[in-house]
Amino acid sequence: MTTATLTIDLSAIAANWHALNRLTECETAAVVKADAYGLGIDRVAPVLASEGAREFFVAVAEEGTALRRILGPGPRINIFSGHMPGDTDMIRSADLTPMINSVDQMILHVEAIPGHPFGIQLNSGMNRLGMEPSEWSALREIALSQGPSMIISHLACADTPDHPMNAAQLAVFREMTEGTGLPLSLGATGGILMGDDYHFDLTRPGIGLYGGLPYVDARPVVTLDLPVIQTREVPQGGTVGYACGWTAQRPSVVATVSGGYADGLIRALGNGATVTHEGRKAPVVGRVSMDLITVDITDLPETPGHLQLIGQHQSVDTVAGFAGTIGYEILTSLGARYDRVYLT
Amino acid sequence: MTTATLTIDLSAIAANWHALNRLTECETAAVVKADAYGLGIDRVAPVLASEGAREFFVAVAEEGTALRRILGPGPRINIFSGHMPGDTDMIRSADLTPMINSVDQMILHVEAIPGHPFGIQLNSGMNRLGMEPSEWSALREIALSQGPSMIISHLACADTPDHPMNAAQLAVFREMTEGTGLPLSLGATGGILMGDDYHFDLTRPGIGLYGGLPYVDARPVVTLDLPVIQTREVPQGGTVGYACGWTAQRPSVVATVSGGYADGLIRALGNGATVTHEGRKAPVVGRVSMDLITVDITDLPETPGHLQLIGQHQSVDTVAGFAGTIGYEILTSLGARYDRVYLT
Repeated sequence: MTTATLTIDLSAIAANWHALNRLTECETAAVVKADAYGLGIDRVAPVLASEGAREFFVAVAEEGTALRRILGPGPRINIFSGHMPGDTDMIRSADLTPMINSVDQMILHVEAIPGHPFGIQLNSGMNRLGMEPSEWSALREIALSQGPSMIISHLACADTPDHPMNAAQLAVFREMTEGTGLPLSLGATGGILMGDDYHFDLTRPGIGLYGGLPYVDARPVVTLDLPVIQTREVPQGGTVGYACGWTAQRPSVVATVSGGYADGLIRALGNGATVTHEGRKAPVVGRVSMDLITVDITDLPETPGHLQLIGQHQSVDTVAGFAGTIGYEILTSLGARYDRVYLT
Repeated sequence: MTTATLTIDLSAIAANWHALNRLTECETAAVVKADAYGLGIDRVAPVLASEGAREFFVAVAEEGTALRRILGPGPRINIFSGHMPGDTDMIRSADLTPMINSVDQMILHVEAIPGHPFGIQLNSGMNRLGMEPSEWSALREIALSQGPSMIISHLACADTPDHPMNAAQLAVFREMTEGTGLPLSLGATGGILMGDDYHFDLTRPGIGLYGGLPYVDARPVVTLDLPVIQTREVPQGGTVGYACGWTAQRPSVVATVSGGYADGLIRALGNGATVTHEGRKAPVVGRVSMDLITVDITDLPETPGHLQLIGQHQSVDTVAGFAGTIGYEILTSLGARYDRVYLT
């Protein structure tokens, strides 16, 4: 077998959800957009539902429709992008709850499916999704009369707790929601970690469930083992890979490993990244190819059958650091060719 | 509908295959690994087969098994990674032709399924896949007596025609294959463009089929249209997105658009990238989020319903340039949430 093995620990996801839940007095949702951050919504969401999550969030109505088929009736499925033209049939038939982001969406929703549940998303300063203060002022009384399920907003800088944007958004959110009497939700994983002020009635953890920063206490969820296809001796001065991207500075042994940027080993990895074998590090050399990487295994005591990119010796965030990105992108880039093994 | 629309022009892929085929006197294969470079092997491969391709290449046996189900019997399906432990049943039952990369693979193959077709991959200098000259010398007579279907190698610098590595690999490949009497294959898209010396008996275009560089004359294949979810006015000094990644230098109108790094709009896009509306460019502002990007549409004459990332005004390679990568990675990163429309 030449495909890599991606092992996903569902019990760790469950443990992370409970641990984040214990950090607050309020209800804890589960964010499972983007195929549960690349880990498989069909496997992840039922586990979280059985552990007690009753509120789920996805990005778009199409994801919500798929999630309803997975979960069946009961849990609430909330849609961050709200109610877009073309979404009405999905929202109605899958019993989805759009987070209304604008006056246009509000009009579309109440005209298309009056009485159907919805929530409100407010822009507290990130300027990405949600109603402006001016829109909300104009719409507030009408919207409240329709009985929204909750009001939410999203923090732009929750991974940096001392950023002044957090307190500024908190103040705006409080001001915009004062007196509504509705359940409120502001914080995701970072918001949970910033303390009670950011918890309100419902938190919405995503990355923390999947073992990523900023939740430093998360149980790791993902292990990625890449099979070695072959090894070769490369003489001093020999080059490896596209554009002769690496030159051996000594007589070297180079392993060719199955897994490349088509599998989410993003191309910004390469020289400077490492993989591990029984805890020892071995450097990735040369460019990442579509299906392959090459690794300098000269200093390993034996020829490994597999090399590990993500696991107990290198976290998702360590790998992200190699590529100059964040753990979220490493997770959502994990590809379709892996043999996926789920631990329960 | 909030998912973006990815339009894939199958007739352009067919036209590119024919155009590349006309550039040589030899046979032309089709490389369809990594789900046909992200565009859908189940749709792409049958078109290429019906246009006349008889030789297909994929990276691993699992892909070959899927491709055999798609194509049925007839076309040869070649496996770049060769014959790995655990592959034997797939190779036999799906009638796959592994490109043997090492003595270990040769032994495995002839012991497990003697008489089953195979090819030979030689390392002509890329130091990634294929037998070393010393291995090949030791194995050559035995291997030739088993009747391999072809001998292949791969160029490291074919995107840079004047790189001395090309001539060096050509010389090594000629020397290693002299007198074998077997069909030979060295060039992929870049090799085709470097002229007759690199063509031998079979070329193996990949990226050129899908409209990417180095094939400058390729017909574009992909169009990616992203729905606008909402727009807002951002005052001068206002910030947008995670970590307040962009600051408005003037009163601005910002559109929030469906599509993010979970959809393959890789995170290295962002400030500096553009999208287009009817040929006018609009800059992406702030960080790419998992499901969303934000665009400064202040200078557009109207509020667009969609913005285009890839299409007639911006090629796959232009977008790759925004992110400091290559078109290949943009294609293979295209995500699973799109509404995929195939033009025939």
